[in-house]
Amino acid sequence: MTGVVVQKFGGSSLANESLIRNVARFIRDRRQRDNALVVAVSAMGDTTDELLALAQRLAGETQPHARESDALISTGELVSASLMAITLRGLGVPAISLSGRQAGIRTDTTHGAARIAQIQTDRIVEEIGNGNVVIVAGFQGLTPTDDTTTLGRGASDLTAVALAAALSASVCEVYTDVDGIFTADPNLVPSARVLAHIGYEEMLEMASLGAKMNPRSIEVAAANDVTLRILSSFNHDSEGTTISSSPPEGVDMEINRPVTAVTTDRNIGRIVLRGMSDRPGVAAAVMKPLAEAGISVDVIVQNVSREGSASMSFTVSAANLTHAADVVRERSDVQYDDVIAEGGFAKVSIVGTGMVNAPGYAAQMFKALADANVNIEMITTSEIRITCIVKQTDLSAAANALHESFGLAANQ
Amino acid sequence: MTGVVVQKFGGSSLANESLIRNVARFIRDRRQRDNALVVAVSAMGDTTDELLALAQRLAGETQPHARESDALISTGELVSASLMAITLRGLGVPAISLSGRQAGIRTDTTHGAARIAQIQTDRIVEEIGNGNVVIVAGFQGLTPTDDTTTLGRGASDLTAVALAAALSASVCEVYTDVDGIFTADPNLVPSARVLAHIGYEEMLEMASLGAKMNPRSIEVAAANDVTLRILSSFNHDSEGTTISSSPPEGVDMEINRPVTAVTTDRNIGRIVLRGMSDRPGVAAAVMKPLAEAGISVDVIVQNVSREGSASMSFTVSAANLTHAADVVRERSDVQYDDVIAEGGFAKVSIVGTGMVNAPGYAAQMFKALADANVNIEMITTSEIRITCIVKQTDLSAAANALHESFGLAANQ
Repeated sequence: MTGVVVQKFGGSSLANESLIRNVARFIRDRRQRDNALVVAVSAMGDTTDELLALAQRLAGETQPHARESDALISTGELVSASLMAITLRGLGVPAISLSGRQAGIRTDTTHGAARIAQIQTDRIVEEIGNGNVVIVAGFQGLTPTDDTTTLGRGASDLTAVALAAALSASVCEVYTDVDGIFTADPNLVPSARVLAHIGYEEMLEMASLGAKMNPRSIEVAAANDVTLRILSSFNHDSEGTTISSSPPEGVDMEINRPVTAVTTDRNIGRIVLRGMSDRPGVAAAVMKPLAEAGISVDVIVQNVSREGSASMSFTVSAANLTHAADVVRERSDVQYDDVIAEGGFAKVSIVGTGMVNAPGYAAQMFKALADANVNIEMITTSEIRITCIVKQTDLSAAANALHESFGLAANQ
Repeated sequence: MTGVVVQKFGGSSLANESLIRNVARFIRDRRQRDNALVVAVSAMGDTTDELLALAQRLAGETQPHARESDALISTGELVSASLMAITLRGLGVPAISLSGRQAGIRTDTTHGAARIAQIQTDRIVEEIGNGNVVIVAGFQGLTPTDDTTTLGRGASDLTAVALAAALSASVCEVYTDVDGIFTADPNLVPSARVLAHIGYEEMLEMASLGAKMNPRSIEVAAANDVTLRILSSFNHDSEGTTISSSPPEGVDMEINRPVTAVTTDRNIGRIVLRGMSDRPGVAAAVMKPLAEAGISVDVIVQNVSREGSASMSFTVSAANLTHAADVVRERSDVQYDDVIAEGGFAKVSIVGTGMVNAPGYAAQMFKALADANVNIEMITTSEIRITCIVKQTDLSAAANALHESFGLAANQ
């Protein structure tokens, strides 16, 4: 449907009655301009976490059954969707709430992390035709066997993007508690500013490096060429950040700026295995039990330190550090002298599609860090990203030095 | 399915984690004996009221939209159903939760008070066949237009009874916070005892007179000859009360006792219209606006007091008294001299199928009340019930006198 606008409001934008009223008024005003509105909503505030904690306590020693856990936590979005429709109707705006099932969202049967198979848009199209603002419960769908699934943490974004793709919406607006995507974390880098436009690939690197948007939703947006706008729920004056394959008219071609942003992650732990036997397959033998335990490993460095013996280092989130070390000690089928788990690290990256096939940015990064007296512990790169692991205490100096060196500050 | 047992647990039996665990253990133990268990659950504690209050606040001046209100409050039962399945699985009992929709409960489109049209039991039967205890979210169903409905306050009872009828269950056990149906309110009449058996008609009179069971569920049980047992969630030693068309073997034929119970309602208000014009249709002219305002009127007395002029009195629940008086004053198209609204009344009744076509019980009732110095304000009767309106301050004396006069006390 041409002219459909999809909006998504997250849990922090709906955390209490007053915020729900604010969002409802905002939707009412927006409807003056765009009358085909589809709104995906998350659960209010911390509802999902609270329900999961309750389920965990009741399940006792076991993990809560995945199908039942989905049946439970999907209610959070049903509540916020119906409350939003009730509030809108109270303001005189015709509105209807639809569950993921009623919105036609069909998924596979992977409870807790289901993939959307298709969206049957008949009911949504019908309700738009009836003049309703359509409020869709995010985060959820229905299996071919008629059971409710959830799409994974933060996946109300994914609901919104998939709806936008299925409805050929003109834009998918994601409302958050920040003004948009910044050139760096403004709490860390005072000169950080909101980017007017970035590409999907850049956003993907940002999403996995700390910017709060579900990475799968970016992939789906890219695959379906859905124009995303990241906007603030609280500051309607901000223009936010547009994410699309090419910048909208009137927006600077930021691709001329080789580095788009400096991303950071403050809480990184490192595990070092010393004196490993240097034979084929040892890396896999270390990584497999970690993957089985659901622990994401990030930067991995392996090197031969003396004859027939290697050392291996890798990073995990600080929250997983102890667990990861235990898994390596107890479950990996590898010989080693020593396992050392260390906290107190941080990750700083430069991201930008302008870096592709353009050498010299790594050298500039390392020089900027050296000039700021920041020691680099580990390095890893992707096509459009260079990442350094540094000491947590050096993070602020590192981020500010890179932000300045690559000309990202406001009015540069 | 022969041998299916349907159980229903109300909100007060599921009000917190500890109570949910208790019910889950009870179901686990029960499953040793009956392995085809279907359990209907209400929302935890006051969840429904809390959600309704939230919706009311967000709807502002208007009433919350009925369809959306149903979408909202039906989540309470989804939560308790999935939590119960999670708890049972934590105890090693295979269990699955089904929404009203998944349980095949199909209703009309009367949001807030939908009628069950049919139950498609395929999924329930399949899940029993899979070895699962089937936990059904009470109180809800699905319209032909694919929307969620609720069945009215207290209607998880109705879900349970309708499931028992559709599954030809051997029994429908309704677990409550009391030991069964009493011969009188034990808080008011110390010698009250639990009845082993009563008939559907008697239970209907009790349900509408204060015993906490949804009246429609009794009607559905009677129409489908479902054997009901009212049992305590908290006291598993109590045998409870069986409700069926004929007493089970080994139970005294209580029908020999003409009066089964004394029922009471403490909070009654009375409205008197004095000096009404005595013409046909005046009663209807008074009652119609009250019905439109959703106010239930109970005992009605009309009499000609002087030539061409009548007076009319009727009772309403004390909570509705002021509203009812306003409605009469503002909306009834009747001439009158005076409208008087008085609180401080109560209702006391004797109920029993043994009274049908057996005269003398009214006289015995009035004498017992007179002997106890209780003045009767108004009188009304049905086939199996005689009701007197008395002063609230006389209620205890009245109830005890009747309980004794009709031989209802323990060991009589």
